[in-house]
Amino acid sequence: MKKVKVAQFGLGPIGLASLQLAASNPWMEIVGAIDNDPAKAGRSLAEFTGLGSLDGLTVSPTLEEVFRDTQPDVILHTATSRARATLEQMRPALEFGVSVASTCEELIFPKLKVPELFEEYHALCRHTGARMVATGVNPGFVMDLLPICLTGVCRSVDHIKVERIVDATTRRQPLQAKIGSGQSPAEFRTKLHAGKAGHAGLRESLALVAHAMGWTLDAIDERSEPVVARHEIQTEFFTVAIGQVCGIHQRVSGSVAGVEKISLEIQMYLEAPAPHDTIVISGRPNLNMTIAGGVAGDDATVASLINVVPRLLAAPAGLRLLTELAVPSCVRVLA
Amino acid sequence: MKKVKVAQFGLGPIGLASLQLAASNPWMEIVGAIDNDPAKAGRSLAEFTGLGSLDGLTVSPTLEEVFRDTQPDVILHTATSRARATLEQMRPALEFGVSVASTCEELIFPKLKVPELFEEYHALCRHTGARMVATGVNPGFVMDLLPICLTGVCRSVDHIKVERIVDATTRRQPLQAKIGSGQSPAEFRTKLHAGKAGHAGLRESLALVAHAMGWTLDAIDERSEPVVARHEIQTEFFTVAIGQVCGIHQRVSGSVAGVEKISLEIQMYLEAPAPHDTIVISGRPNLNMTIAGGVAGDDATVASLINVVPRLLAAPAGLRLLTELAVPSCVRVLA
Repeated sequence: MKKVKVAQFGLGPIGLASLQLAASNPWMEIVGAIDNDPAKAGRSLAEFTGLGSLDGLTVSPTLEEVFRDTQPDVILHTATSRARATLEQMRPALEFGVSVASTCEELIFPKLKVPELFEEYHALCRHTGARMVATGVNPGFVMDLLPICLTGVCRSVDHIKVERIVDATTRRQPLQAKIGSGQSPAEFRTKLHAGKAGHAGLRESLALVAHAMGWTLDAIDERSEPVVARHEIQTEFFTVAIGQVCGIHQRVSGSVAGVEKISLEIQMYLEAPAPHDTIVISGRPNLNMTIAGGVAGDDATVASLINVVPRLLAAPAGLRLLTELAVPSCVRVLA
Repeated sequence: MKKVKVAQFGLGPIGLASLQLAASNPWMEIVGAIDNDPAKAGRSLAEFTGLGSLDGLTVSPTLEEVFRDTQPDVILHTATSRARATLEQMRPALEFGVSVASTCEELIFPKLKVPELFEEYHALCRHTGARMVATGVNPGFVMDLLPICLTGVCRSVDHIKVERIVDATTRRQPLQAKIGSGQSPAEFRTKLHAGKAGHAGLRESLALVAHAMGWTLDAIDERSEPVVARHEIQTEFFTVAIGQVCGIHQRVSGSVAGVEKISLEIQMYLEAPAPHDTIVISGRPNLNMTIAGGVAGDDATVASLINVVPRLLAAPAGLRLLTELAVPSCVRVLA
């Protein structure tokens, strides 16, 4: 069995978890890691990650430095939510014909935010033989790939509704911060409406679902509001007083000719009761699916990134949508 | 938009429903239909199906007769549960380079029952450029493709359990007959254990899941028992007295080194309460998914057959597994 050589780009918490999962997989070989933070570059990867098997590797400041020593088969990218920044960061890999799997939220449907870059980078990939795709849990699974997959047994689909309720109390500090924990509602609402807070990728999920269904949405409505604590909440990281923000409630919907076709709703707040993911497809047949407790965040995000790699490498060259790949599954050994 | 030219092989209830759904799709064009029943061959397809748009077409007795007049892009095959019979019926199409989508249960994982035919027909497809795949709801979705898809967000998987409870009262006559409605338990048990009754494809689902997970099962346990009526049951088609059979309970499980890895259980009986499909994945993270009411049978089976066509035509030539195709979704327009 030939191992897949991977390099990890971005060594934040998700990047570290990605590196650790990749290192535990018998079919992957870590050949490098990149982070543009000067405090990380040059450090021993074994020491930085606690993985003795990475002995001899250091954190590189650039992809170019990695390519001087080795040619990875794929870059695992976990550095930004922005499509433009991701594509620019990955250009040296794509020019080199090296494929990229990314957790970049906006790249779940790149035509939405950067249509002109989509064309440019798709052409670049086609030219060099590189493949690139973004994946994740949300976006990347619960609100797009999974409902799309469910419609595979539908003769017709009239409406798709997804509801995701996350109890943020059980999640790591950056997520609790991102949802505004402990901030004043006015302050957080301003950030939310300026796009400086809240959950990224909801519109991309909407666009991917619409694309898969062949629907051209002519109206999109997006709403984001803080959830306010009704009693004092104490987490490992935050103390939230009554009246302060303890989370977010975001909804995006899309319509065709005045008729709503897709509704995606996420409530992510501290002490949210009965967390779950529910997908309701109105069509023939109707489908009503619930994942009790919901799909857990970070573990599942990292898993989706690693699991997409064999599918990505088997896909035709290009900047790909998840719906263009064979369905990813948990891969511990390569067939 | 170039239409996909299809011919329907098999004009039983599922074949007719397939033809009707195909005819309603703007991206499909019906160019023929085949049934080897002399009572059907030669009849007007418009009259036989009630679809005026099929005026001018007749039911052909053989694929060869269809190929004399036209070359379909794909054959929709709904004629038998047996892999050997399906492959032999489809040989003229595959030799002609024409692709095939089938509801044949055993073809969900052909290596199980006909490993030597798998090699032969895979090579034939590779040679002629044809693609062939089997799909459906069960097997083909609830107990294989959907759990496999869910593991795409798992770092690791220890065990997969699927439970499907079907209220057969709501289903058509052939299904109520297949599950033994109104027979004596002894008589039906004999048929069940001889493989002459019951649900086909459970072992194929098991094999497909094991294949996707990279598990080599060294022990497989299969059990089938009749469900016996505890009160008189009256359906549209059957009257079942107390003590007579009203359905089946089938379970198959697979183990590796004495540890169970997969358990698939189906209960299909008249007046089954709270029908549902539940998938429980024990791993990291754990996932517990339920489709309330379950995925309805015939509509969903026909939908899966039509929806797989664009994915099949985009796949490399060969006898393919569902897991090798891009995830099928409801297709009403082609991208």
